[in-house]
Amino acid sequence: MKNGLVAPSRGFERCEYEQRTEKLQQKMAEQRIDAVFFSTEHEFRYFSGFASQFWQSPTRPWFLVVPAQGKPIAVVPRIGAAGFDETWISDVRTWPSPRPEDDGVSLLGDTLAEVSKQTRRIGAMLGPETHLRMPVTDYRMLQVHISQHDMVDVSEIVRDLRSIKSAAEVAKIRFVCDVTAAGFDFLLENLHAGMTERQACKLMHLEMLRLGADACPYLISASGPSGYDNIIMGPTDRILDKGDLLIIDTGANFDGYFSDFDRNFAFGDVDSATHDAYDAVYAATEAGLSIAGQGRSTGDVWQAMWSVLEAAGSLGNDVGRMGHGLGMQLTEWPSNVQGGDVILQPGMILTLEPGMTFAPGKVMVHEENILITNNGCEMLHKRAWEKLPIITR
Amino acid sequence: MKNGLVAPSRGFERCEYEQRTEKLQQKMAEQRIDAVFFSTEHEFRYFSGFASQFWQSPTRPWFLVVPAQGKPIAVVPRIGAAGFDETWISDVRTWPSPRPEDDGVSLLGDTLAEVSKQTRRIGAMLGPETHLRMPVTDYRMLQVHISQHDMVDVSEIVRDLRSIKSAAEVAKIRFVCDVTAAGFDFLLENLHAGMTERQACKLMHLEMLRLGADACPYLISASGPSGYDNIIMGPTDRILDKGDLLIIDTGANFDGYFSDFDRNFAFGDVDSATHDAYDAVYAATEAGLSIAGQGRSTGDVWQAMWSVLEAAGSLGNDVGRMGHGLGMQLTEWPSNVQGGDVILQPGMILTLEPGMTFAPGKVMVHEENILITNNGCEMLHKRAWEKLPIITR
Repeated sequence: MKNGLVAPSRGFERCEYEQRTEKLQQKMAEQRIDAVFFSTEHEFRYFSGFASQFWQSPTRPWFLVVPAQGKPIAVVPRIGAAGFDETWISDVRTWPSPRPEDDGVSLLGDTLAEVSKQTRRIGAMLGPETHLRMPVTDYRMLQVHISQHDMVDVSEIVRDLRSIKSAAEVAKIRFVCDVTAAGFDFLLENLHAGMTERQACKLMHLEMLRLGADACPYLISASGPSGYDNIIMGPTDRILDKGDLLIIDTGANFDGYFSDFDRNFAFGDVDSATHDAYDAVYAATEAGLSIAGQGRSTGDVWQAMWSVLEAAGSLGNDVGRMGHGLGMQLTEWPSNVQGGDVILQPGMILTLEPGMTFAPGKVMVHEENILITNNGCEMLHKRAWEKLPIITR
Repeated sequence: MKNGLVAPSRGFERCEYEQRTEKLQQKMAEQRIDAVFFSTEHEFRYFSGFASQFWQSPTRPWFLVVPAQGKPIAVVPRIGAAGFDETWISDVRTWPSPRPEDDGVSLLGDTLAEVSKQTRRIGAMLGPETHLRMPVTDYRMLQVHISQHDMVDVSEIVRDLRSIKSAAEVAKIRFVCDVTAAGFDFLLENLHAGMTERQACKLMHLEMLRLGADACPYLISASGPSGYDNIIMGPTDRILDKGDLLIIDTGANFDGYFSDFDRNFAFGDVDSATHDAYDAVYAATEAGLSIAGQGRSTGDVWQAMWSVLEAAGSLGNDVGRMGHGLGMQLTEWPSNVQGGDVILQPGMILTLEPGMTFAPGKVMVHEENILITNNGCEMLHKRAWEKLPIITR
């Protein structure tokens, strides 16, 4: 690989899928749950290893059933059957899809009924930050089909499991974080006034793909004279000019795992308030880095960062949190929020994302990706520049 | 732009959003529906113009309420408020999200109750090929919050509306189809034995981005000696060798609109059965092209293609259909299926996707993207090569 970045191996050892499934089954036993079914891409992949971009097509539902013991069972459209040859799944049940009148509902119901004969409690992802990837009418049909069973939420179990990353997962995230950091370095060398936001983002997009990212599903930017007003829109065709502040925030992906961090750039002279705000969020990130670690809470991390921003005169922040979990999704549980009581554990990967409105309509946001360890935390990539970088080209 | 491809303008005139909304409201009136709410990216964007990559983050729900008259109302996390400045939406209601105990549910419920005082029938996307992008527990809370209202399905109304593309939508799809076709031409010039599937896909990925695609969310490949066994997995690190057949299927995106087609490549000598299968799916596509047009049904299109494949000795096909709608999503309603009774109308964009198993474990699939016109259909890009191209490098 260019730039000396070496991609880790793809996929996972079979034992990793076995361990994930066993941990889920242990929690299921504690909660007297006979079977769980999943309908969404990331849970499906996490427990089965089935990795396909075909989730882009909304036409067909896909289901994975995890019984109380043994391997998961795939209940999937016939088009997907061949994709399981490379996974550890051996029981693959298919129907000819699309078939809107019964798109897998009866096959899923029959499978659940077959493996749920004890407590008749069936787990599904029903809680915060989830959705069911199936039509509501189909979910109702399913409930009728297995009306002797109760549906219970397992989203807390799954988010807890997924929040602790294995060494192999960390390696993938570390690699894609390195690629992202190198992409920002490339920008620093190549940005110039007169480019549009969109051209800047495209430049970074191409570079990250060349460096080994598989894709870059999230790549936004915002800019304006000495400040920007949001961090989730763009890029636009706005021309970057002298006096502008630019933010680019990106989530690149390698083998199903994300990076998620941003960088700020000034074009020539910007207001001293902008430099001060940069210094404040940089210092807030330092405070977050020094406190984040095993045994600390998400509220502790939030408080450490907020104290710095408050002292720097923050006018608040519309983001609603200052960082979050990261892994197979761009944002995962938990959130770094005021009063947050989630206790950090080794293996968790978080973003530290202090941000503040420093003048009306002007925000400044930093973000870094960290791994919680036994004695604190470690950065997963090169730290942001200590001072706001100034593009003079 | 390189290669003479000129990107059309981004976004839409305000009147286009007005027309979309009025058409929806007309159908709502016919079905005595007071208000509709949307929770998913494409419907939200279709009626509001709000275009953000932030849908990648599953943490926060987003809602758009369409009342019986007037403009849609955004009910969104505070982080998103600034993003509506560039849209035609003026009523933007926010809550501080994430707030798992009430993530917009009461605000959505109150908004719906406010605008639904006549029939108390509220429309939502509940039918085939849809899902609600909100937790099931939140949907239950919503139903309790507005328990005097009935929830009815509007997915058929919305799919009908979205299936007829405006001239501006067609221009975006035509452009990204041209980019995709140029990407395949680039591959034809640059593929060689010894590359991996992944390298071939990355080459095309980079080229399409250079040519003007914003992203390429779908880019798969499969290969094997004289045949491949699936069309939804990969790319893998399999090395392409003499005697292989390779398929690459891709959906590139420009300004929120997709292309979706594939190309096949032979590396040196492949079996004559492989050439015959290529000729058969090529001829099946020709049959589809000659019959697709205003007044024909999706079943007619299927039958025209199937007759050719059947005569060529097809052993069937696991895909379950031979093409589908295309637009803001990689696959949209309707499906070209046996007996399909959807009548084609001018402005519909479809894929023609004849495929067949021509030997055990070997499939051959073609795909092209077409626009239904008043007198037939037209290709949205350069047609596939009439004969299976042979890479001799």
